[in-house]
Amino acid sequence: MSGIGDLQGTMFIAGERVTDGEGFFRAIDPATGTELEPAYPAAGDAHLDAAAGAAARAFGDYRRTSAEERAAFLRSIADGIDAAPGLVERVHAESGIAIERIEAERTRTTNQLRLFADVVLDGSYQGLRIDSGDPTRTPLPKPDLRHRFIPLGPVAVFGASNFPLAFSVAGGDTAAALAAGCPVVVKAHEAHPGTSEIVGRVIADAVQAHGLPAGTFSMIHGSSPELAVALVRHPAIAAVGFTGSRRAGLALVAAAQSRPIPIPVFAEMASVNPVFVFPGALESRAAEIGGGLIWSVLTGMGQLCTSPGLVFVPDNPEATTLLEAAAAALDTADAGCMLTPRIAASFDEGVARISAVPGVRLVARATEGSDAVARCTPTLFETDLSTFLAHREVLSAEVFGSVTLVVRVNDVSVDFDTVVDGLEGQLTASLQLEPEDHGLAGELVDRLELVAGRLVFNGWSTGLEVNDAVIHGGPFPATSAPSTTSVGTRAIGRFLRPVAYQNAPADLLPDALRDAAVGTWRRADGRFGDGAIGA
Amino acid sequence: MSGIGDLQGTMFIAGERVTDGEGFFRAIDPATGTELEPAYPAAGDAHLDAAAGAAARAFGDYRRTSAEERAAFLRSIADGIDAAPGLVERVHAESGIAIERIEAERTRTTNQLRLFADVVLDGSYQGLRIDSGDPTRTPLPKPDLRHRFIPLGPVAVFGASNFPLAFSVAGGDTAAALAAGCPVVVKAHEAHPGTSEIVGRVIADAVQAHGLPAGTFSMIHGSSPELAVALVRHPAIAAVGFTGSRRAGLALVAAAQSRPIPIPVFAEMASVNPVFVFPGALESRAAEIGGGLIWSVLTGMGQLCTSPGLVFVPDNPEATTLLEAAAAALDTADAGCMLTPRIAASFDEGVARISAVPGVRLVARATEGSDAVARCTPTLFETDLSTFLAHREVLSAEVFGSVTLVVRVNDVSVDFDTVVDGLEGQLTASLQLEPEDHGLAGELVDRLELVAGRLVFNGWSTGLEVNDAVIHGGPFPATSAPSTTSVGTRAIGRFLRPVAYQNAPADLLPDALRDAAVGTWRRADGRFGDGAIGA
Repeated sequence: MSGIGDLQGTMFIAGERVTDGEGFFRAIDPATGTELEPAYPAAGDAHLDAAAGAAARAFGDYRRTSAEERAAFLRSIADGIDAAPGLVERVHAESGIAIERIEAERTRTTNQLRLFADVVLDGSYQGLRIDSGDPTRTPLPKPDLRHRFIPLGPVAVFGASNFPLAFSVAGGDTAAALAAGCPVVVKAHEAHPGTSEIVGRVIADAVQAHGLPAGTFSMIHGSSPELAVALVRHPAIAAVGFTGSRRAGLALVAAAQSRPIPIPVFAEMASVNPVFVFPGALESRAAEIGGGLIWSVLTGMGQLCTSPGLVFVPDNPEATTLLEAAAAALDTADAGCMLTPRIAASFDEGVARISAVPGVRLVARATEGSDAVARCTPTLFETDLSTFLAHREVLSAEVFGSVTLVVRVNDVSVDFDTVVDGLEGQLTASLQLEPEDHGLAGELVDRLELVAGRLVFNGWSTGLEVNDAVIHGGPFPATSAPSTTSVGTRAIGRFLRPVAYQNAPADLLPDALRDAAVGTWRRADGRFGDGAIGA
Repeated sequence: MSGIGDLQGTMFIAGERVTDGEGFFRAIDPATGTELEPAYPAAGDAHLDAAAGAAARAFGDYRRTSAEERAAFLRSIADGIDAAPGLVERVHAESGIAIERIEAERTRTTNQLRLFADVVLDGSYQGLRIDSGDPTRTPLPKPDLRHRFIPLGPVAVFGASNFPLAFSVAGGDTAAALAAGCPVVVKAHEAHPGTSEIVGRVIADAVQAHGLPAGTFSMIHGSSPELAVALVRHPAIAAVGFTGSRRAGLALVAAAQSRPIPIPVFAEMASVNPVFVFPGALESRAAEIGGGLIWSVLTGMGQLCTSPGLVFVPDNPEATTLLEAAAAALDTADAGCMLTPRIAASFDEGVARISAVPGVRLVARATEGSDAVARCTPTLFETDLSTFLAHREVLSAEVFGSVTLVVRVNDVSVDFDTVVDGLEGQLTASLQLEPEDHGLAGELVDRLELVAGRLVFNGWSTGLEVNDAVIHGGPFPATSAPSTTSVGTRAIGRFLRPVAYQNAPADLLPDALRDAAVGTWRRADGRFGDGAIGA
């Protein structure tokens, strides 16, 4: 049993439970500011080297496991997380996240692991392609060419503070990497080491139960930038998954690029997730939009990469209705607890920066309902377009937490374009519209899709369906790799590269590329199908 | 008509023929060392800015062209290149490449453009995915999510010296980028400005004939590193395609990464393309392999990214047979002309570096048959494994040109692994084997696929079939982007990124993502198909 009482302050290095470290730290309950037992070791170079080296040694065998083996492994991890006693309570103690949200996050996390088990079994992620040869072609015979995507090698995953389950030890990056056939070395987030121990133990146990190489999974603790850089620069590491701040993400990217052999860093960073409210929508449901906005901004205390931080609204009388409804929603809402005292301090600084801009007006704040040390006071501002444009840099910068700025614009047909042309890359952009707005919206969609990874219509950007079609990515600085996604089944593609086999004898071909293989979709001689070749 | 006589020393900037520049240069006939008329202008900052700015302005309209329009445009370029008078002669004069090879390269180039026309029409490159919504799902409605891949924006393409047609102005990078919907700014290679003018004129004419935005295509001249860096750093440029040296490629990568908004550089760089000869193959066809090796090494005077520079052979008596056959093939072969005098000088230096290693033996040189100024003397060396391992760095470095080193190894089952574990990333690796070698080869294939992008069985790595299944890529330093290919239909993927549409009204969805769309393969609710949704 792995309840809270069992926490032993361990790292997991290739199947070994390691409790020694270069210094120790404890999690802090952000509600009370008190330290939580047990103490956790910070990894030193030897720990890191042991974990990364074991991952490199495990890679050869792990990548050759069958789809069935990897799927069963992923499902065992999901089952283990669902069953882990004390997990939800420890997440709450370490993060201040509301219990019902943690339960939902746990469901998302385990569903995600099971989804990647399905992806492995489906097999189409391998991108199989075949062009049959023709030895009789003149002047030169046509070679037989086939390719598939293979795993890159050991992946370093950095746990994120804001999703202690879904973007951490067994989160999306880990699920995608393990599904791809890559061993994983997790650097657990220092804000939730106990959560990480519980989940790490589930994975380590599953590695053992399924007879996989011990180095398939390791998890180390530590909070120093030097440790993070050393992990990214370790020669055994082949790719990096990260979700967090722009500053930290760019530091990892720089570290990866300065290696003798550069490696990709899939960093998901800052986004303000702009919302555009069209005149028809404003006219017909201003109050509903105002209330929905606050519901979205309050979700997870705004500590979501998709939290809407900027809302552009026509300066009609209904804009006031929208703001009044939003203010009313805030008045009846509670302040809350943030992930860490440091994040709460950053939030307060960010709110103060917005507040200090002349021409920005405070509309409402939710001040009641929390006496947390890491307290978040959800805040609503408004301003006009000229103020926004004059102070674009500070007003467009992400403030992590429940705060949003409504910007009144005069002429939607011109001003929305002006706004979009100056936007940095975004994870999402949202449109509130009615059929009569579609004409105007069509042009905005054309521009917005160049700026954002996901366009949301008549909904809110928070909340992410994890499936085949979702994209959680976007142009820099939303991510460091705009051609990829960190959520959804396509996320596996980040950890793969293609290899072609020319005129390979059948017995030296990977099974999935042989003529007789069935059941996996592939493109053969220009046609898609899941049957045998020549059958 | 665009024969040699018509050459006017022009750049093409958004439909304008530009003949002024910051200084002028002429091509040099590598056979004679004489300058070729006319003089070509070197682009200055204003030219570059005009070309990149026009590309940015063209992007919006060009990316919205229909598949039929882009396919017709690509086919017009192909037809124009096939029909361009004087093209083959000018390529020959500027590059020293043999006429029949130029004709073959022209065919490959125009076939490649037509292949990408087919790719555009096929449409599956868009990676369409749909997950239908379910408004009745509890506790939360399931959103409708759909995604497609859209073009990145203007692409900078650097012409390569060694393929004046297939990897230059209208080469693979340009074809893939234009197919994707990206405008292209070509920096023509300074070794073949006349060839570039002829091909550039064909593209510029096609842009006009098809009524496309003028900035869809521009081509500038110049040879300074500063110009190259300025192009990569121009804010309008969204991605870069490059084939050439490691030094130049890494300089472009560094420039791209130092931008305020970093962009991807798809650089194909150094590779020595190792060959592994297994005992059974050596026993049954040593002389054939020796002759085939020299044929491959002589192809294009070894100035191919896939030229085999290292051959590992069991130290059996038949190894001598292989070397004798190779030496005989070299003895009857001719020396030849290289692309430029500078490349010939680099080749001589590289050969001298190998020659200077104690323990390396010169087997044969082809000294007759050419009095070119940029003369290549094809050369065959041999050595033993201990010498190779002791001087690994110099003996594993690519020498661009017709030179190869045969390394005798004692124990294939151990020594091949030792060799592979120390290899840098490669574009290709080749295996010569017979059925009795398959047991040993299986393990080597496992290792080689982690090192190379294409494995060739019982054939030679030179010569590349351009189709769906080919991969021309590989781990660093073979390329800067190992998850991609620069040849074959997948090359289009380099210039795309995904965008998801959540709950989009049908009339605001891209056509290909609407329920009723037919004829393009997409993955809808977990199933592949090319029919309508719900039909």
